[in-house]
Amino acid sequence: MTYCLAIKMNQGLVFASDSRTNAGVDYVRTYCKMHRFCWPGERIVVILSAGNLATAQGVVNRIQLDFEDAGAEYNLLKAKHLFEIAQYVGRLSVAEQRQFAEAIETRGGDGSATFIVGGQIRNHSPEIYLVYPEGNSICASPETPFLQLGETKYGKPILDRIISAETTLDDAARCALVSLDSTMRSNISVGPPLDLAIYMAGSLEAPHHVTLDLASPFFRRLQRRWNEGLQRAFDRLPRFDWEEKR
Amino acid sequence: MTYCLAIKMNQGLVFASDSRTNAGVDYVRTYCKMHRFCWPGERIVVILSAGNLATAQGVVNRIQLDFEDAGAEYNLLKAKHLFEIAQYVGRLSVAEQRQFAEAIETRGGDGSATFIVGGQIRNHSPEIYLVYPEGNSICASPETPFLQLGETKYGKPILDRIISAETTLDDAARCALVSLDSTMRSNISVGPPLDLAIYMAGSLEAPHHVTLDLASPFFRRLQRRWNEGLQRAFDRLPRFDWEEKR
Repeated sequence: MTYCLAIKMNQGLVFASDSRTNAGVDYVRTYCKMHRFCWPGERIVVILSAGNLATAQGVVNRIQLDFEDAGAEYNLLKAKHLFEIAQYVGRLSVAEQRQFAEAIETRGGDGSATFIVGGQIRNHSPEIYLVYPEGNSICASPETPFLQLGETKYGKPILDRIISAETTLDDAARCALVSLDSTMRSNISVGPPLDLAIYMAGSLEAPHHVTLDLASPFFRRLQRRWNEGLQRAFDRLPRFDWEEKR
Repeated sequence: MTYCLAIKMNQGLVFASDSRTNAGVDYVRTYCKMHRFCWPGERIVVILSAGNLATAQGVVNRIQLDFEDAGAEYNLLKAKHLFEIAQYVGRLSVAEQRQFAEAIETRGGDGSATFIVGGQIRNHSPEIYLVYPEGNSICASPETPFLQLGETKYGKPILDRIISAETTLDDAARCALVSLDSTMRSNISVGPPLDLAIYMAGSLEAPHHVTLDLASPFFRRLQRRWNEGLQRAFDRLPRFDWEEKR
């Protein structure tokens, strides 16, 4: 499984992803699920992937090949709007899935993959899109400022409570890490290292990217402080009336 | 959907459940999913249910009828161990599902249901069991002190962080409410009122039972304090190194 998320705020975009992939519990591997494509001053595209690893890698490889092939019908640089890139990723994904569908389904497997496509093209606003296995997509909105892939439920409550369009980039990045931490604690199919990319709206510069291992001093401090803070919040919850009467 | 949970600690047992049931988003209803059977001094049984409402009600009605029928082959009072009651609930559930399986599946429905069975029989320890739709069951353990039904993921991280065998009954009850609150905020298929039952180990008395609506002053205070506490915990998270350099 996987857990990836992207957040869109007034200040810009935050992307975060875990690195665990597995084909059954006895075949667990580590792969980066965050792919960054940057043309400073022109366009920035970040792609997060979940689902069948071969499909996801096939799509990312195709994107790279299309870009390197001068005769390619379409590529990341030809898109006029980020929505077109979401559609392009959707087309590549559907094609990749179709190519192997029969063989995969015969063996009871699932070749589907889901993507988040985000970034900014010059003269347009930053955007994030969720691309479904069927190839269609939805974008974030002020009311729904984040999109998630994979094991989305464990880490959703903290996003629901903290994130809004006004959240700062650094706060959103911290919240994404807390959301990932909660997910990793509750589900072993999501694991480190964590990739984090922070993009400032309008900068058209490569997002600030860090990879955090569980052993990294910052991540350990964040985990400890969050645990302590939650415990303190819990200890301060109101007593039941029967406790007060004791 | 549904969210129910039971927690087993040294001090006793806590049960909590929401009350929302739905057959599609255009048919949402409210039903209590917590069923208490008490013979003070002898045995206490609490049953929580999730899944197909007709199956769940069928099982609970059957339990009641078996108890009222002097000639019944088996009933709650005949069980020597709580595990037998879990097996009994499993048998009733499988029978109920089988009776309607063909008709339900023809219409693309799902007649399955899952139960939590907990309580205490005199001269035995308190126990909680999760009864699968197949009729088999698992119990809680010191390492896995809680069992959940339905929409289990949103509310699991806080249980993972707070609950242990040493948690007090009232703290576990508070944690169950926080877990339910987080789930309700993130998923509209889980909703109020909330049932909470607190059973003190060895008492063999009816669990202390309360029903909490969202408008109840205690629940509103709990929600507000938890939100404030989380926000405070979040605000105290460590800064990234690039923030400190600013």
